[in-house]
Amino acid sequence: TTTYKICLLPGDGIGPEIIAEGVKVLNAVGAEYDTAFEYADALIGGAAIDETGEPLPAATLDAARASGAVLLAAVGGPKWDTTDPNAPRPEQGLLGIRKELGLYTNLRPVQIFNALADASTLRPEIVDGVDMMIVRELTGGLYFGRRERFYDEPAAGVDGAPGQRAYDTLEYSEYEIERIARQAFEIARKRRGKVTSVDKANVLETSRLWREIVHRVHDEAYADVELEDLLVDNTAMQLINRPADFDVVVTENMFGDILSDEAAQITGSLGMLASASLGDGVALYEPSHGSAPDIAGRGIANPLAQILSVEMMLRYSFDMADAADDIRRAVTEVLDEGWRTGDIKDAETPVDHVVGTERMGDLVVAHL
Amino acid sequence: TTTYKICLLPGDGIGPEIIAEGVKVLNAVGAEYDTAFEYADALIGGAAIDETGEPLPAATLDAARASGAVLLAAVGGPKWDTTDPNAPRPEQGLLGIRKELGLYTNLRPVQIFNALADASTLRPEIVDGVDMMIVRELTGGLYFGRRERFYDEPAAGVDGAPGQRAYDTLEYSEYEIERIARQAFEIARKRRGKVTSVDKANVLETSRLWREIVHRVHDEAYADVELEDLLVDNTAMQLINRPADFDVVVTENMFGDILSDEAAQITGSLGMLASASLGDGVALYEPSHGSAPDIAGRGIANPLAQILSVEMMLRYSFDMADAADDIRRAVTEVLDEGWRTGDIKDAETPVDHVVGTERMGDLVVAHL
Ligand SMILES: CC(C)[C@H](C(=O)O)[C@@H](O)C(=O)O
Ligand SMILES: CC(C)[C@H](C(=O)O)[C@@H](O)C(=O)O
Repeated sequence: TTTYKICLLPGDGIGPEIIAEGVKVLNAVGAEYDTAFEYADALIGGAAIDETGEPLPAATLDAARASGAVLLAAVGGPKWDTTDPNAPRPEQGLLGIRKELGLYTNLRPVQIFNALADASTLRPEIVDGVDMMIVRELTGGLYFGRRERFYDEPAAGVDGAPGQRAYDTLEYSEYEIERIARQAFEIARKRRGKVTSVDKANVLETSRLWREIVHRVHDEAYADVELEDLLVDNTAMQLINRPADFDVVVTENMFGDILSDEAAQITGSLGMLASASLGDGVALYEPSHGSAPDIAGRGIANPLAQILSVEMMLRYSFDMADAADDIRRAVTEVLDEGWRTGDIKDAETPVDHVVGTERMGDLVVAHL
Repeated sequence: TTTYKICLLPGDGIGPEIIAEGVKVLNAVGAEYDTAFEYADALIGGAAIDETGEPLPAATLDAARASGAVLLAAVGGPKWDTTDPNAPRPEQGLLGIRKELGLYTNLRPVQIFNALADASTLRPEIVDGVDMMIVRELTGGLYFGRRERFYDEPAAGVDGAPGQRAYDTLEYSEYEIERIARQAFEIARKRRGKVTSVDKANVLETSRLWREIVHRVHDEAYADVELEDLLVDNTAMQLINRPADFDVVVTENMFGDILSDEAAQITGSLGMLASASLGDGVALYEPSHGSAPDIAGRGIANPLAQILSVEMMLRYSFDMADAADDIRRAVTEVLDEGWRTGDIKDAETPVDHVVGTERMGDLVVAHL
C-alpha cells in the first residue's frame, strides 16, 4: 500500500461541505488502487482569520509543505469584506499560499460535458468541441509587484488640489516567463500541439519581453508545437467567437485571471470546472468557483468541481492517471444519467433527479 | 449657416475607403440641417510613418486642435509590425493623440440592430435587449505609466543567471478617477440610471482607490444613480452570462480595453460599433474595429461603424441630436431592407443584397 499525505483546506462558505465529497471520492479511489490517503486539516481564508487573526497561519503552510498535495475548497465571503486597507482579507490566504509554495503555473481546463452542453449561453454549434487548457502565470505580475498609496499628494486631486494617488507594478523577469512558457509547450505536446500566447505587446514592455522569451523558448526547444500570438483584447473576442479553436492558452497573471473566467463562463457550468496550481514542489488543487456564501450550510452545493480537482491531483501529483480517468468517467456517467445539483439543473430536469451535495458525492462513488 | 471644422484622419488599411463614406453622410446631413462641414486631412499611424517617419506628426496635432472634432478611421497593419523596440509603431499615433488631446473618456456603446440579432454567437434570448455603454478611462493606467526593460540583471535569468527584466506601472490619481466617474454617472442619468464600476479591489491598490473615489463621487453628487461594484474577472463572466443586465460600465484603461472588445463581440457585428473619445476640448470619433489590411483597397469594407461614429460626433461635439437620430434611423432602415456588406451577410442574404463600401454609404444617404 502506497501512502500519500494530503493537506485539506476547507476554507469558507460551501468549502467544508464540498471538500468532504472530495475526500469521499479519494477514499473510494484509494481502496480501489491500494493507496492510502492521510489527511491533515488546516485553516485558510476567513475561517483562519476568525480563529487566528491571519488568513494564512504558519501552521497551515507547515501542513501544506509536509503533504504530497493540497486540496483547497474556497475562501471568502461578505463577513470579511472590508474597506480597511490594513484589515486581513481571506484572499490574502490564497495569494499567500500561491507565493509561499511557488505555485507559478495555474492550469484551468475548459471542457464541456455533453450532458451539460445546453447550459452555455453560447449557441450549441459554437461551444461544440470546446476543449482548452488555460495556463496562467500565478506568482508574478500585478498580483505581487510593489504597490503603494499616497495621501494628499500635490495635484493628485481635482483642479490641481492635493489628493490621493496609487500605483501597482506589473513586473516580469526572463526566468518567470521562460518557465511558464515551457509548461505551456509541454502540455501542448500532450494535447493538440498548439499554443496561443496572449499579451498586449503593442502597449506593454512586459508583454514585449513576454513575446520575445516565449518565441525564444519555442524556437530553441519546442519548434514542433504550433505557436501563435494574440493580443489580450482580441483574445477576449475570439474566446466568444470561436472557442473551439483554442488548445493551450498561456498568459500572464492578470490577463489569465480575466480570460480563464471568461472561458469558464463559456461552458455555462462553473460548478464543473477545476484547477491545479503547480510549482516545483507540492501542488494545490481547487474548484474554479468561489465559496458561494449564499448557499453555504444548506447541503445543496455542487461538489463536482471539487471532485474534478481531486481528479487533477491524482493525475499531476500522484501519477495515478487510471484513477483520474475513473473519476472523470464516473462524473460523466452520473451526468448522463440525469443527476443534477441545483446550479446545473434546467427546466427539463425531473424533480427527483435534483440532488444535494452528499448524494452527488455518493453517486460519483457508486460509479467508480 | 453654421460651419464646423472636422479633422479627418484616414490612417491605414481600409481607413481611406470608409472615411470617405463618413464624409458623404456628413455632407448629406449638413445640407439637410443648414450646416457646413469643412475638412482638413492629416496623417496618422502607418501612413504617417511612411511619409514623415513619425506616427503622429506635429502637423496632425495642430490640425486636430484647430478643428471642432476629429474623425479617425483606423491605424496599423503588418507592414509596420516590428520587434524593434525603437522603431515607430502605428498605435503610437493613436495613443499619442489620446494623450495630447486629453481624451480621457472612451465611450463604447454596445447595441444590437434587430436585423443583425442572429449574428451573435450567443443565444438570441441572451442578447435580446443588450444596450450598454462602456465608459473606459483612456489616458491613464498601464498605458501611460513608466515602463522599462533591464538587460542582464543578476538572477533575472533561469537558475539565477543574468537575464532580462521589464516592468510597467499602473497608476491612477484621485482626479483621474473622479472625472471619469462623473462622466459615467452623467451618462447613466440619461440612460437607465445604473452604473457598474469594474475593478480588482481584492488585489490592486489602484482598484481600492478607484472604488473609494467612485463611491465618494456617487454619494456626494449622484446618489440617484444605482451603483454596483463588480470584479473584473466576474465581469468577464457576466458579460457572457447576462449582457442585457448592464447599463453603464465604467472601468480603468486596460480592463476597459479587454471588456469593451469582449462586449463588442457579444453583438457578433464588430463592423457596426463606433466609439467616441472625449476630453475637455476637441473630441475624436472612430469605429471600434481595426484597419483590416487583408481587405484594404478592394471597396468591400463595411463603412457603417464609421458612419455611426459620425452619428456620435454630431451628438457629442455638435449638439445635433436630430441629425444623429436621422443617421441611426437611416442605418437601421438600410439593414432592415436587407442590405449587407460582406462582413455582416449570412447564409440567407440574397447575392444582390451584398454591397460594397460606396454603395452602402449611398444607401444610408438615400435614407436620410
Ligand atoms: C480571489 C482572487 C484573488 C483570485 C485571483 O484573482 O487570482 C481568484 O479570482 C482566482 O482566479 O483564483
Ligand atoms: C491599438 C491599441 C493600442 C488600442 C488600445 O489598446 O487602446 C486599441 O485596442 C483600442 O482599444 O483602441
